[in-house]
Amino acid sequence: MEQTKDIEISAYLNSLGLKAQAAKTALQSLDTELKNKALTEAANALVRESGRLLLANEKDYARAKEAGMAEGLLDRLKLTTARVDAMAEGLMQIASLPDPVGEVMEAFDRPNGLHIEKVRVPMGVAGIIYEARPNVTADAFGLCFKTGNAVILKGGRDAFYSNQAIVAVIGDALTREGIDRNAILLIENNDRAVTTAFMKLKSYVDVLIPRGGAGLIRSVVENSTIPVIETGTGNCHIFIDETADMEKTVPIVINAKTQRIGVCNACESLLIHKNIADRILPILGKALLEKQVEIRGDEIVREQIPQAVAATPEDYGTEYLDLILSVKVVDSLEEAISHINKYNTGHSDAILTQDQANAQKFLREVDSACVYVNASTRFTDGFEFGFGAEIGISTQKLHARGPMGLKELTSYKYQITGDGQVRP
Amino acid sequence: MEQTKDIEISAYLNSLGLKAQAAKTALQSLDTELKNKALTEAANALVRESGRLLLANEKDYARAKEAGMAEGLLDRLKLTTARVDAMAEGLMQIASLPDPVGEVMEAFDRPNGLHIEKVRVPMGVAGIIYEARPNVTADAFGLCFKTGNAVILKGGRDAFYSNQAIVAVIGDALTREGIDRNAILLIENNDRAVTTAFMKLKSYVDVLIPRGGAGLIRSVVENSTIPVIETGTGNCHIFIDETADMEKTVPIVINAKTQRIGVCNACESLLIHKNIADRILPILGKALLEKQVEIRGDEIVREQIPQAVAATPEDYGTEYLDLILSVKVVDSLEEAISHINKYNTGHSDAILTQDQANAQKFLREVDSACVYVNASTRFTDGFEFGFGAEIGISTQKLHARGPMGLKELTSYKYQITGDGQVRP
Repeated sequence: MEQTKDIEISAYLNSLGLKAQAAKTALQSLDTELKNKALTEAANALVRESGRLLLANEKDYARAKEAGMAEGLLDRLKLTTARVDAMAEGLMQIASLPDPVGEVMEAFDRPNGLHIEKVRVPMGVAGIIYEARPNVTADAFGLCFKTGNAVILKGGRDAFYSNQAIVAVIGDALTREGIDRNAILLIENNDRAVTTAFMKLKSYVDVLIPRGGAGLIRSVVENSTIPVIETGTGNCHIFIDETADMEKTVPIVINAKTQRIGVCNACESLLIHKNIADRILPILGKALLEKQVEIRGDEIVREQIPQAVAATPEDYGTEYLDLILSVKVVDSLEEAISHINKYNTGHSDAILTQDQANAQKFLREVDSACVYVNASTRFTDGFEFGFGAEIGISTQKLHARGPMGLKELTSYKYQITGDGQVRP
Repeated sequence: MEQTKDIEISAYLNSLGLKAQAAKTALQSLDTELKNKALTEAANALVRESGRLLLANEKDYARAKEAGMAEGLLDRLKLTTARVDAMAEGLMQIASLPDPVGEVMEAFDRPNGLHIEKVRVPMGVAGIIYEARPNVTADAFGLCFKTGNAVILKGGRDAFYSNQAIVAVIGDALTREGIDRNAILLIENNDRAVTTAFMKLKSYVDVLIPRGGAGLIRSVVENSTIPVIETGTGNCHIFIDETADMEKTVPIVINAKTQRIGVCNACESLLIHKNIADRILPILGKALLEKQVEIRGDEIVREQIPQAVAATPEDYGTEYLDLILSVKVVDSLEEAISHINKYNTGHSDAILTQDQANAQKFLREVDSACVYVNASTRFTDGFEFGFGAEIGISTQKLHARGPMGLKELTSYKYQITGDGQVRP
């Protein structure tokens, strides 16, 4: 029985892989104008057929509600006319961005007369595994399509009907533009074994990007044989150095912690230089408590902020995604850097200081995708960086680090032209 | 028992990981001058202590010979004074190359006043798994060290004493320069379970590069949770288009097939346009047979070259690394491209043609790291590309593709400077 099932799964995924490969070949030669026209057509179709999308979404929503899904997740799953409009606007925005494909990144001649060009090309086929957020379906398609990649999507099972409808509407739009509709493919089998097998579809998929919580990402890293880009876990720190500008400190910390709590670039842990601790802690404590932030601190912190509770070592390694902040007093910049490099997730960390040398040391030695001086960690974002789009925030060092826009969805190839050269 | 062993392996690898992490922090801030001085000192030490290296190598060699190792592998294992000199020269050459670390790759200002710099930084800790070639030990160290990376090496067990001696000599040289000797670490436990556990040492190792045969690479891809760069399998094609320059065709094919047969950029498969087949095949057959190349071909090939044997479908997917060549006649450029994209390994493929449009189509549509017009595939090489060094040839699309020099051993980080910016 198990074996029959494995064969069925394998046949299903191989058929998807073959479709994606065929679409990939067509996509890599599409000119920018046609890609933008198709994105516009897909955007219009989503708005035009929003009734169909909302109907499908209602089926998902009702099922999820009955199954007792939490309010926050239900809200992420929900489609409204406004949200469909936002998906369409996202596609229009991607259409307006420059096309990175075909850019000659470098060109050089060798003494033997060979002319070598390093040319930006699509990855080929991207796989995206995500949770029950239907907007990711349109968004991931738009980014992959603009960069000439076919995409195979595995969305959360709770958004199944919504995703199916979105993919159908976009596929129809592509067909109307004379483009292979298999540029967007959805895995319609929600068996967990299918998802795991998908992570090993190495002969068809060039890159796999998980978008979701820590559990999903861990599962992909452990199971995938396809190269993975890890995204989105952020245990972000702010270090308040002894020369920090007192005026700017509180607004930055409050912004980084509370402006939006469920996001990967929110601040989760605060380090304070001992020489400024007794001056800053009371003011900061008051501001954080006013925002309903629970403070988990060491002894000095609790002395200055009586409402603070004791922090455990686990606290320093926790991405709360909640109104909770761990706070620790450190003896030196060195201790701050070493604490951050031990506990951070390589996402975003900031120093608040007026000392140039300390700022430079922090920028150099903290091992994170984005390192800040005197600004909120909340700016780690493709739009805030001016990329005009974002597929995720990479927390690994291979290929892409930090906010990933269109360029980060491309690879390159070397095109070498000769006139008969052989190697001596 | 098993459990005790697992705990021991884990403790051993964690201790190596911690050492590498400490070295990494020191390495990332080393200035170029000191790195070059240390590389020079290491090169000198290898030459000075070559007696010690040859002695250690004799132990490996004797053991391997007794165990019945094949001649070709024994030759790869063998160290001589000349080979030690070559290792040292390799390190000197790396010292002479520009240091990519610290390069500001991009710098831009945002409307809110944030200044963002994208700065090239070391990966951190690199892991290299390779076979019984002691020269890789010095070579991989040199490339990683110059780019500010600590390296953990797992060499083939047959080269154990040689690697141990090389690492000791280099480590001593680093110590003399006041640099953490743990910049180069060798896994000294040759248990297979240790190698597999090393592939999962994700909290300490930023990138894992296997250097060796297809079996080693497959094992790393299947087991690793660390991001991997796949290198070195090359089922390389040459397509002889109908307008190919007859004068240049034979020398290119002979060069690509026979100049060195055991290398990944050697040609393994030849495609010939049907309109030129009866003219080129007899000449080509004669030249290949003179070089003792076994030809495995389709029916047309065998008609024109009676000595050719029949090719099976497996032949077209085989990287022979031997004096064997598969040959197939195709109806069109399209068939050639589609055959290549089906059977190649994404390494190097060439078209011989005088038709500009066909050349462009081939360059665009063949999905390989290096795509050639009118030149031998043997040029896919870091030195031939002018990189001055090479850690391997990447056949994946993530991070690096094709020959990998120093830059490909780096990552980047964003350094963001503000004056109190918060996100609205």
